[in-house]
Amino acid sequence: MAVRIGFGKLGNIGSAPLLEFLLDERAERKDIEVRVVSSGAKMGVDHAADVAQKLVEFKPELAVVTSPNATLPGPTKLREILIGAGIPTIVISDSPAKKAIQDIEKSGAGYLIVEADSMIGARREFLDPTEMSLFNADLIKVLTVTGAFNVLWQEIDKAIQSLRKGEAPVLPKVLVNKERAIESSGLHNPYGRAKAIAAYEIARRVADLTVEGCFVMKEWERYTQVVSAAHEMMREAARLADEAREIDKAEDMVFRTPHNNEGAVLQKRKLLDKPS
Amino acid sequence: MAVRIGFGKLGNIGSAPLLEFLLDERAERKDIEVRVVSSGAKMGVDHAADVAQKLVEFKPELAVVTSPNATLPGPTKLREILIGAGIPTIVISDSPAKKAIQDIEKSGAGYLIVEADSMIGARREFLDPTEMSLFNADLIKVLTVTGAFNVLWQEIDKAIQSLRKGEAPVLPKVLVNKERAIESSGLHNPYGRAKAIAAYEIARRVADLTVEGCFVMKEWERYTQVVSAAHEMMREAARLADEAREIDKAEDMVFRTPHNNEGAVLQKRKLLDKPS
Amino acid sequence: MAVRIGFGKLGNIGSAPLLEFLLDERAERKDIEVRVVSSGAKMGVDHAADVAQKLVEFKPELAVVTSPNATLPGPTKLREILIGAGIPTIVISDSPAKKAIQDIEKSGAGYLIVEADSMIGARREFLDPTEMSLFNADLIKVLTVTGAFNVLWQEIDKAIQSLRKGEAPVLPKVLVNKERAIESSGLHNPYGRAKAIAAYEIARRVADLTVEGCFVMKEWERYTQVVSAAHEMMREAARLADEAREIDKAEDMVFRTPHNNEGAVLQKRKLLDKPS
Amino acid sequence: MAVRIGFGKLGNIGSAPLLEFLLDERAERKDIEVRVVSSGAKMGVDHAADVAQKLVEFKPELAVVTSPNATLPGPTKLREILIGAGIPTIVISDSPAKKAIQDIEKSGAGYLIVEADSMIGARREFLDPTEMSLFNADLIKVLTVTGAFNVLWQEIDKAIQSLRKGEAPVLPKVLVNKERAIESSGLHNPYGRAKAIAAYEIARRVADLTVEGCFVMKEWERYTQVVSAAHEMMREAARLADEAREIDKAEDMVFRTPHNNEGAVLQKRKLLDKPS
Amino acid sequence: MAVRIGFGKLGNIGSAPLLEFLLDERAERKDIEVRVVSSGAKMGVDHAADVAQKLVEFKPELAVVTSPNATLPGPTKLREILIGAGIPTIVISDSPAKKAIQDIEKSGAGYLIVEADSMIGARREFLDPTEMSLFNADLIKVLTVTGAFNVLWQEIDKAIQSLRKGEAPVLPKVLVNKERAIESSGLHNPYGRAKAIAAYEIARRVADLTVEGCFVMKEWERYTQVVSAAHEMMREAARLADEAREIDKAEDMVFRTPHNNEGAVLQKRKLLDKPS
Amino acid sequence: MAVRIGFGKLGNIGSAPLLEFLLDERAERKDIEVRVVSSGAKMGVDHAADVAQKLVEFKPELAVVTSPNATLPGPTKLREILIGAGIPTIVISDSPAKKAIQDIEKSGAGYLIVEADSMIGARREFLDPTEMSLFNADLIKVLTVTGAFNVLWQEIDKAIQSLRKGEAPVLPKVLVNKERAIESSGLHNPYGRAKAIAAYEIARRVADLTVEGCFVMKEWERYTQVVSAAHEMMREAARLADEAREIDKAEDMVFRTPHNNEGAVLQKRKLLDKPS
Repeated sequence: MAVRIGFGKLGNIGSAPLLEFLLDERAERKDIEVRVVSSGAKMGVDHAADVAQKLVEFKPELAVVTSPNATLPGPTKLREILIGAGIPTIVISDSPAKKAIQDIEKSGAGYLIVEADSMIGARREFLDPTEMSLFNADLIKVLTVTGAFNVLWQEIDKAIQSLRKGEAPVLPKVLVNKERAIESSGLHNPYGRAKAIAAYEIARRVADLTVEGCFVMKEWERYTQVVSAAHEMMREAARLADEAREIDKAEDMVFRTPHNNEGAVLQKRKLLDKPS
Repeated sequence: MAVRIGFGKLGNIGSAPLLEFLLDERAERKDIEVRVVSSGAKMGVDHAADVAQKLVEFKPELAVVTSPNATLPGPTKLREILIGAGIPTIVISDSPAKKAIQDIEKSGAGYLIVEADSMIGARREFLDPTEMSLFNADLIKVLTVTGAFNVLWQEIDKAIQSLRKGEAPVLPKVLVNKERAIESSGLHNPYGRAKAIAAYEIARRVADLTVEGCFVMKEWERYTQVVSAAHEMMREAARLADEAREIDKAEDMVFRTPHNNEGAVLQKRKLLDKPS
Repeated sequence: MAVRIGFGKLGNIGSAPLLEFLLDERAERKDIEVRVVSSGAKMGVDHAADVAQKLVEFKPELAVVTSPNATLPGPTKLREILIGAGIPTIVISDSPAKKAIQDIEKSGAGYLIVEADSMIGARREFLDPTEMSLFNADLIKVLTVTGAFNVLWQEIDKAIQSLRKGEAPVLPKVLVNKERAIESSGLHNPYGRAKAIAAYEIARRVADLTVEGCFVMKEWERYTQVVSAAHEMMREAARLADEAREIDKAEDMVFRTPHNNEGAVLQKRKLLDKPS
Repeated sequence: MAVRIGFGKLGNIGSAPLLEFLLDERAERKDIEVRVVSSGAKMGVDHAADVAQKLVEFKPELAVVTSPNATLPGPTKLREILIGAGIPTIVISDSPAKKAIQDIEKSGAGYLIVEADSMIGARREFLDPTEMSLFNADLIKVLTVTGAFNVLWQEIDKAIQSLRKGEAPVLPKVLVNKERAIESSGLHNPYGRAKAIAAYEIARRVADLTVEGCFVMKEWERYTQVVSAAHEMMREAARLADEAREIDKAEDMVFRTPHNNEGAVLQKRKLLDKPS
Repeated sequence: MAVRIGFGKLGNIGSAPLLEFLLDERAERKDIEVRVVSSGAKMGVDHAADVAQKLVEFKPELAVVTSPNATLPGPTKLREILIGAGIPTIVISDSPAKKAIQDIEKSGAGYLIVEADSMIGARREFLDPTEMSLFNADLIKVLTVTGAFNVLWQEIDKAIQSLRKGEAPVLPKVLVNKERAIESSGLHNPYGRAKAIAAYEIARRVADLTVEGCFVMKEWERYTQVVSAAHEMMREAARLADEAREIDKAEDMVFRTPHNNEGAVLQKRKLLDKPS
Repeated sequence: MAVRIGFGKLGNIGSAPLLEFLLDERAERKDIEVRVVSSGAKMGVDHAADVAQKLVEFKPELAVVTSPNATLPGPTKLREILIGAGIPTIVISDSPAKKAIQDIEKSGAGYLIVEADSMIGARREFLDPTEMSLFNADLIKVLTVTGAFNVLWQEIDKAIQSLRKGEAPVLPKVLVNKERAIESSGLHNPYGRAKAIAAYEIARRVADLTVEGCFVMKEWERYTQVVSAAHEMMREAARLADEAREIDKAEDMVFRTPHNNEGAVLQKRKLLDKPS
């Protein structure tokens, strides 16, 4: 029997859009059954309640919820309903969620807080659909290469494995910082790892500028300039992440960890080797 | 009253993961209410039926469904249920969906077929969560800069505007090819446009290699080499798309089209101008 | 006695300008005697006849003819005269020449058809001497790194070796596609090979745009934009080919195959090794 | 009546392989009739005599001869025969040809000496067909963007125009140095021009290393290292030339000078303008 | 009479090595007389006393002292002696010096604290002469393009101008943060400014990693990895700064502010304009 | 007892600004005591005398003097006073200093002449503080990676070691040309070495343009264009040097030679090895 996993998404963070596909990258996996419910960009309490309701109807054995700033009422409501329904729940969120760690732990949920998953430069003078999309593309590249995404799916996979054995899942309590990410990155070359750490830190510091530009500065010329600088930082972080991966290509040492049909994780380094 | 829009997603294409956020990039829009339901990577008929069911419960005034190859039974089922429930439906899919155009038109649905939204290199020897994620990041960058995403959200916005006025929405019937995309890209510099067209065509041709590598070639060394070449093409297309946008930055002519709170689309070129 | 080789060139393709130098890259080779006759950019039947006439006077033991689209009357005439004079003849041409394969085979000639040797964007609004030259520089880079040029000179060398032994040369019948090219590229790193295949395919697809821009589209703004996109593709393919070679440099694994004075092909990998 | 132009090529220099196509980049020109005869890589006196003989048979109204180092016996013989046959002759050669300027002037020929057309790193440990071809691709890019090729075809065009009017052609006496080249480059942006001058000078200094590596150094490890450095310089010069052109693209100021059917030179700057 | 300026340097920061040359970039200035005294890498109290002593002997009308962390005893001693000798003194230091601002103000000195002038990764496993030098080259590039260096020399020039008029100099009290730097950068293009701000912030955040790597982490593998990441960040910041300047080149809008012989600052934008 | 080393600097060359830090990159070395005295950009005879005076007061056991063109009266005076005071003296200068070699040898001093340490483009229309600083950053990068700086500090270290043993120091007599530099570079990959040699030669040839632009050309438009080209060459040389180092990173073969506390030079290659 496949393990049922429900993803509830409120608003957007870089860790969210491809999350369920990280578990089943070629759609071949038979050991899981996935549903995703989202209210799109909005993350009010009512949205949360409605998303939670639909997820509960799916009767998931594991719930994964994503949102910016998990301390907000909407994300809080979402996990409360799921936990209240007896569903083991993992909260994935960004740096501001650090303040919610104690509450999450008390509630019995797990958490994965991704420090580099920085807030976007959400100012009308700057952020349009194109800029939003490019920021996410860059951020996804950073979170992928630096290992942050690997932490996410590997921790969810652990919970799935427990559930498959009929055990109560041990939920993750992980702050994904630069060292935790790189540890899971599989990057081989130490300079590639240095570049990935650099990319991670640059991406993390993007939030300093977007928070300042969105919540502190009042003059539109100033904040427009500052949030545009933040996106340039993310673009640069993505370029550096790409460079890190290219180095492993140059040594034919790219680490690959495909899932097989049964959800087991295979491994390989050389491109023309079989994973095992 | 906000227009209710339901997104049903089966499997993944590059046009899907950020689609709902393209409509409301800063989560400020008051004229729409969004729900997304997805079965993740799987796209069987049962998955489709279940996703459709949940969407119908949301009572959307407009449905948007995304999937690879809209001719497959799952995607077909998904749109049939929605149409059967009287919901105006837009199908977003990739090149193989061209064969479904006639059927879609007959069914009364609209369609947006994105030629450059190429299939991923789905071979176990190659595609792991990391490679999947990077491919999508590159593809998103291409589809964003070249204008393909603009076509998508602008066409959905048109339908929303009709619904807000109480009119029946005119559903799009658009094959997003290189010229249609670039027309909507807002790119200013003609060499930037040339680079964007080039990026679009390279991205489109990725599918030639992934289809050959996934469905035609049998020897694993050959197909592993070929699908890896396909992903290098996509990485290059993303680099070229990025170059196109940088050119407009160099002239301070980046076109920005943010939505305002009421869902209207504003415009600006110079970074330090106000949109209007 | 040196083998006499006559090159007849009508019009230009990327495979032509350096062809004879590929056989004798340091002008040290004593086993061949070369003459080239060309009518420049023009490739009419009269030109062909005149070029053929001069070549025949040279009494070559082997003739190699190059032209775009070997199905055209000029190129056809050129090879017919040479074959008629009893000279073993190899036809080198681009993708449209595939339609001539059967005719060439019947005529007894050999052929080397280079798929990536794409047509230039020959529109007056776009193509001037500078743009023509840059396109060729990029194309030459692609054809070199991806192995296509290696196929050409190695096949001609084979025929020369037969002639030196007094045997009738076995003439090549080769369609140089992505796999055939890379097989001869000597590239070591598998990601470098993937990048080279990608470069080859991008270069091959340039012709889709140039043919559309030169023969299908009528509006000058459209075709100017499209042929400029085609040249951006070729520039990108060249960049990717360059990247492929740089990877082998980074591992000190560049494959080198110099000819010695006697026309034998030596080999080496490490830069500071002697070829042998 | 079309003007008959005969090109005689001995050995290879960067200015030679595309020379005749620079005059008729789209094969549309009706005012010229071209023949090229070459002995390939070899440039002995016998080769020269034979090439000259074939050219004279063509009865050209103008002869253009290309070779490395025009002071050598072969190139000298070639031009002597042509001049002896009463044919106005232009000598195109590289820096060592400066020593032949007085002789050439006395003989009545014109000359175009291209300083940046540097000698290749012709050492067996280094130079194979691939390396030879890549060096030429890079060199062609440099000579094109920096304006050197423009000097060549514009000077030949001048002679053609005189001949068309029935006048004796004024033959060029031009040393193409950095300033003469850039003056003809059509480059618009002054930093682009600075980059082009830099590329020209780097390319010119390549010869210092190749001459040292080929003729001065005796230890194979030393000269292999030095000629490889020379080719890296040329690759870098090409990259810089490319950068110069990209800057003009970014301002939509690329200068284009297509020939029309009658051999007149049209002009344009904006990509989407008509040449006039 | 030339104004006498004494520079006292203890240890190294990025702002120090070229400081005196920023005032007189072509060695043509007649209105100033400069001496520099330094104890090299060491910055103890005795070094400070000795450097101060030599400077006092020079009888400067203005002293400028540079050091890391101006709160340390050595730098404190240096400025105390100079101030005690009645010499107007400007302290230039890095972020840790913020804690000394109050003391400096009380002492009557001026200060210029450059936030992005981050500490180097001073671990023996990592930092050798080469790595030290490259870090400084990158840091100098960042501080130059982002405008930080402009703040430094412009503020010193202001003090010089006062002294030339016989007035007591108004000493600067400036924290050079991202906005203060960019304001003085002269960068024209707003995306270039965004990139420069991004570069400044990345450079500033380098110190987070070097401080952690040098003073917090104990395990050598961890700190070696982290300080190497810090240097990768600085390299990236330099690349981004370079990109910012290249954008202004592409518009021929590079701001130039040469000093003339009298120390006045001229201005120009277009490369081929005269400064005025 | 620490060896006392006095650095006297007149004017600026690329080898000067970081020189003393190359000896003690982490400020940990106990075996040397350093003082630097400089007159900034000016290098007249009076400046030289004053700098020399201060240095002599420091009672150095070794003096190192840096200046452009050591044949000029100022630099000559500086070394004469130091030698006259019985202090072993090493002269570090640029290519024009070659003419002073005989004089320097006669005087008993040592010398280190760095060919690639090219003169800056010192024209008021071009060179402002920003351009000066960027040129130096690029030049420092070139001199570092190519090994030139290694020659400098290693030769000074040799003299220090002699002095520590109580021996008279053997002073260097070294012309740092491309081969001497690369020999000391520690670069591992032969293509990296080729790129470094190329960078060295390009940097060396910068002086051809700056000398022409500063001393030969009279028309300001011409010399402004030429010196700007020279700086583009240096930027390109820096980029190539960076590329050379990145190649060694890709193989985890960067050579590191940190000093320990006692001034001994340790070695390592792999980033995560300890130096020994």
